[in-house]
Amino acid sequence: MKGKFVTIEGCEGAGKSTQLKLLKDYLESKKENFIMTREPGGTILAEKLRNIILHFDEEDICPLAEAYLYAAARAQHINKLIKPSLDKGKLVICDRFIDSSFAYQAYARKLGFETVKKINDEALQNIVPDLTLFLDISPEKSFLRKGGADKSDRLERENTEFHMSVYRGFKKLEKIFPERFISVDVSGTKYETHAKIIEILTKKVL
Amino acid sequence: MKGKFVTIEGCEGAGKSTQLKLLKDYLESKKENFIMTREPGGTILAEKLRNIILHFDEEDICPLAEAYLYAAARAQHINKLIKPSLDKGKLVICDRFIDSSFAYQAYARKLGFETVKKINDEALQNIVPDLTLFLDISPEKSFLRKGGADKSDRLERENTEFHMSVYRGFKKLEKIFPERFISVDVSGTKYETHAKIIEILTKKVL
Repeated sequence: MKGKFVTIEGCEGAGKSTQLKLLKDYLESKKENFIMTREPGGTILAEKLRNIILHFDEEDICPLAEAYLYAAARAQHINKLIKPSLDKGKLVICDRFIDSSFAYQAYARKLGFETVKKINDEALQNIVPDLTLFLDISPEKSFLRKGGADKSDRLERENTEFHMSVYRGFKKLEKIFPERFISVDVSGTKYETHAKIIEILTKKVL
Repeated sequence: MKGKFVTIEGCEGAGKSTQLKLLKDYLESKKENFIMTREPGGTILAEKLRNIILHFDEEDICPLAEAYLYAAARAQHINKLIKPSLDKGKLVICDRFIDSSFAYQAYARKLGFETVKKINDEALQNIVPDLTLFLDISPEKSFLRKGGADKSDRLERENTEFHMSVYRGFKKLEKIFPERFISVDVSGTKYETHAKIIEILTKKVL
């Protein structure tokens, strides 16, 4: 694996999209050899599965099936896009990855860490992020900042307790994966947060 | 688990649909408390995934993602339909189940038995068939009988070597699961095969 793999995590409304846009502009200005992608998604099949995961409402998706759908999308994404890009020496920036499965499925949906780990083991194909940046803000604050949840999104419309479980899940991962998982305080302006992200990226992978 | 769980397996063109129809008529005439379902499928979500698995052609589905899609559909199917039906004491007849994942994904797609077993472990939720009937005819013969493959089906249009690998995979399962996996010679007429199936069902689960 010649390239570097960086994942960006955060609860709904933590400002991932804003930071990814700023980061993209920065990396382009620096002429870095990079791609930006997202989970679930990144390939035609995986985007189709994303649409099911986020918007399917004809019946409840049980937590186990949900975890497998993420894993299916991940297997395809790694096989078709992430691994080939890393093999070509690219920097791969991914909006959400395995840690979202832990935070959402293992903790908030209560499947448990070991179950979600086992479900994803083969899907991951030995791909581990070199660096994971967690945009650290509690959902109570971030939804306030964002002006409420997007009700068309199956996950965003979950209640506050669900989103707080996701947040506590991410904070546990900080302790489980200290070698790669870094929390970034995002309480300042978007430019302050951007500066912090660039500083960490420069030190760790650029 | 108060009910009994019977799965019907076979290569493309082995006559599963014909036998399932005859079996349905028989069980109805006997006023058995049963349901018939299929994999992938059996719930709205799982049928949606079936449609992707069988007909998606906008990009190649990698074997690993394919295995996870089957597992996602299976997790939902067991959770929403199979387990609740067994809990109510019903006889559940399922057109394909875990053994198709072994024959197709583990053997024909070459993911390996242990990998497919591991991927499916959580999805299965401890549900094991009481009886699996394998309609035993080699694809070379069955396609001849059927008059060729259905080219609109992503799996049926695979080449003969693929279908022969699937067949050899099923024959291996006969040795791995001798306590539940029974091969039924289907070289006779459909009524002769039906009679054999009823005989085994009566002895084992009815």
